[in-house]
Amino acid sequence: MNKPAGKPAAAVPLDRFAAIVGAKYALRDAVDIAPFLVERREIYQGRAAMVLKPGSTAEVAEILKLANATGTPIVPQGGNTGLSGGQVPLDERAVVVSTVRLDKIREIDLATNSMTCEAGVVLQRAQETARANDRLFPLSLGAEGSCTIGGNLSTNAGGVQALSFGVARDLVLGLEVVLADGRIWGGLRKLKKDNTGYDLRHLFMGAEGTLGIITAAVLKLFPAPRSTETAFVGVPSLKAALALLLIAQARAGANVTSFELMAGLGVQLAVKHSANCRDPLREPHPWYVLIELNSQAREGLRATMEEILAAGTEAGLVRDATIASSTEQAKNFWLIRLILPDAQRGTGGSIAHDVSVPVAAVPDFIEEASATVSARVPGIRPLPFGHLGDGNVHLAFCKPDGMDKAAFLARTDEVNGIVYELAGKYRGSISAEHGIGAMKRKLMPKVKDPVELELMRALKRTLDPNGILNPGKVL
Amino acid sequence: MNKPAGKPAAAVPLDRFAAIVGAKYALRDAVDIAPFLVERREIYQGRAAMVLKPGSTAEVAEILKLANATGTPIVPQGGNTGLSGGQVPLDERAVVVSTVRLDKIREIDLATNSMTCEAGVVLQRAQETARANDRLFPLSLGAEGSCTIGGNLSTNAGGVQALSFGVARDLVLGLEVVLADGRIWGGLRKLKKDNTGYDLRHLFMGAEGTLGIITAAVLKLFPAPRSTETAFVGVPSLKAALALLLIAQARAGANVTSFELMAGLGVQLAVKHSANCRDPLREPHPWYVLIELNSQAREGLRATMEEILAAGTEAGLVRDATIASSTEQAKNFWLIRLILPDAQRGTGGSIAHDVSVPVAAVPDFIEEASATVSARVPGIRPLPFGHLGDGNVHLAFCKPDGMDKAAFLARTDEVNGIVYELAGKYRGSISAEHGIGAMKRKLMPKVKDPVELELMRALKRTLDPNGILNPGKVL
Repeated sequence: MNKPAGKPAAAVPLDRFAAIVGAKYALRDAVDIAPFLVERREIYQGRAAMVLKPGSTAEVAEILKLANATGTPIVPQGGNTGLSGGQVPLDERAVVVSTVRLDKIREIDLATNSMTCEAGVVLQRAQETARANDRLFPLSLGAEGSCTIGGNLSTNAGGVQALSFGVARDLVLGLEVVLADGRIWGGLRKLKKDNTGYDLRHLFMGAEGTLGIITAAVLKLFPAPRSTETAFVGVPSLKAALALLLIAQARAGANVTSFELMAGLGVQLAVKHSANCRDPLREPHPWYVLIELNSQAREGLRATMEEILAAGTEAGLVRDATIASSTEQAKNFWLIRLILPDAQRGTGGSIAHDVSVPVAAVPDFIEEASATVSARVPGIRPLPFGHLGDGNVHLAFCKPDGMDKAAFLARTDEVNGIVYELAGKYRGSISAEHGIGAMKRKLMPKVKDPVELELMRALKRTLDPNGILNPGKVL
Repeated sequence: MNKPAGKPAAAVPLDRFAAIVGAKYALRDAVDIAPFLVERREIYQGRAAMVLKPGSTAEVAEILKLANATGTPIVPQGGNTGLSGGQVPLDERAVVVSTVRLDKIREIDLATNSMTCEAGVVLQRAQETARANDRLFPLSLGAEGSCTIGGNLSTNAGGVQALSFGVARDLVLGLEVVLADGRIWGGLRKLKKDNTGYDLRHLFMGAEGTLGIITAAVLKLFPAPRSTETAFVGVPSLKAALALLLIAQARAGANVTSFELMAGLGVQLAVKHSANCRDPLREPHPWYVLIELNSQAREGLRATMEEILAAGTEAGLVRDATIASSTEQAKNFWLIRLILPDAQRGTGGSIAHDVSVPVAAVPDFIEEASATVSARVPGIRPLPFGHLGDGNVHLAFCKPDGMDKAAFLARTDEVNGIVYELAGKYRGSISAEHGIGAMKRKLMPKVKDPVELELMRALKRTLDPNGILNPGKVL
């Protein structure tokens, strides 16, 4: 944090911070602070001096002004669902700024197809508000019931509909951001085209709170789909899955909203893990894909799905397939896919990765990574799944049967090393959608172009010269 | 350019610059340089010391290294089609870096749906190459026959398909950029999801060459559409046009690739201007829209267009409409729209604007701007047209009949002032898609939030501390 060596850190002015938000919203007792120091998987045990719950952008600005003047580390936190530890305070002097009270939906503009949300609005509420207005807000991911818009944008969340609608940063028209020194950038524009200088939005999105705190955003809305078709497909190989994706896109374009890949083992585990999961197909297959089409047209989508599957079958890419005949059945298909992270953890130990490679490289990457790791850890069970259409593979490895859990998890760094090296070989990314946070920070110098890292550090120094914003994260 | 007062500028080391690219590609004679000093409309008379045509990214890097060391102003230039003067050198010491020889399409990856183009690739060639591979590169604009990918990205071009596919910055997966000091950022990734630190791409796109020179990009490709429908529609009012847009989007979503607005006067002028233009409707209407739908489905799109028009007619939003029965007829519809900039200039004098407002505000904005300007300049003929779906209005005003041209053009600043003030009132932008360049630079302090301007200046200082990159543009 650019602290001069030898000079003791200044005391955190707890009372002055508390005065900004009011005593009720300034938590200091260990028991009150505790929930903000750990995340769901309990990988981190955080430390912090206090937790503040500002009720307005102006209060966030006052907090940062004081933090900047006193060198106090600030850790913004939304729904505390991040998977890379970006939201966890790791410094006893840290002040957590929780966005929980910034929960207003400030405006919905149906003709512009936009919705202005504060950072603390829970994603599911944003989705439901859009739906109630006959609109779609397409960002959709496992944690949507508790993650927040501010966190989604700060980590540039991906999810299951990015294939058609893009990642979180693609869904934003305007931003309101509090800068490190407390200045407020009021960029809540509702413009689809605006070429007046540098685009500042993308600087703050994906920066995990290290360059500023996003307090509100103008989100893009889309017309609500009027028909949906969901298919569960058994395919013989990864290459067949990829070829089927191209057929689907050639025939349905942007209507292909999801194209999810699952290893055969995943479907077995999901069915075993949850009584609500049933294998939709009669026989097991080495690989599965879940295809979802959405359309504004009320008719014709079923025929399109059938054409895709027929073309796939004819080309030898589809072994078996079923199209959901009800919303209920479609939900069952999705449950199998969405339960995979839990099912994988239920195997008694797993080492998971959120990586991406160019779409064309997904089959080779998965095959090489699985083979290399299996050679190193005999009996390990590769469980790749994820967003094939985005080249985003959640490459998990489950513990070999009978192996001791601790002994298995002790191999984590070794397995990670193999996967990240291969991601590099295929010109991929060690973090497709979960961000860097605290977890992957030390890997950055290994995987990034030195010029790129220098540029990032220069931006950090420019926007946060005192290093108060989420220190120890990302860079 | 941060030149210390009183200290004379250093001589431009012409021979050293020439040695980098070779004498053949270093132009010094006035006659050779002349075409690079003016743009098509001849608004600017530029000045420059020389023009360099580097043949590789490495040569661009050497040029910038030398320029940075010697404080030489560098002006990158692509197809020289910019409408804000961003590409025009305005300093006798300036060195123009033409990207004309950086014209390789380095790779097409059909499974990843990406194409890697160097900066000097002409847009139309990129489109055609995509088409030859059964793909679509959707960026499409008037100058596509001569503008280049580098210029498109540096100005974040918009065009007629942004409604569905986004603006230029939305079409990019990766970038290669030469920084002010000659370092090369090799960010040519082909990843749809990559959350490893700050997104640097968006810093350079739309920066008009003031933060770095884009030398290559990985562009997104889309499956080629398999059916197209084009309708030419007469509507009673601006509000009707907007309501029809919402109906079209509700029924066709992302298949609505264009929704173009034209004032009645525009269609009259287009028909008068070109013998190839015919009014597709029997009677004149106050406003027209051109709707284009594209789909991956071979069938059903005509029915969708008919449903949109039927719903619009039932709601009183459509006075008359015709759907193109052939590609030829669709081309005629488009010719009317695309000839408008020329037709408008053919009226003997016009004052044009490229502005945007939130989509919902388009009718009120156009009406108030037209009324206010008409009150100030009696007889002036408002000619609004543009991309209604993007809130992007090309608000032109034609000379009153019988008024002296010079007397009319002398009112330019006054008319601009009204339009830009109203754009601000409706929370719009004074440059929707043409950029700031030299033309609107002085307006920036008037229209931008001071915090935003300070941030932009801080970024400029960080990335180009010696101020050599396209000085006098944007900021």
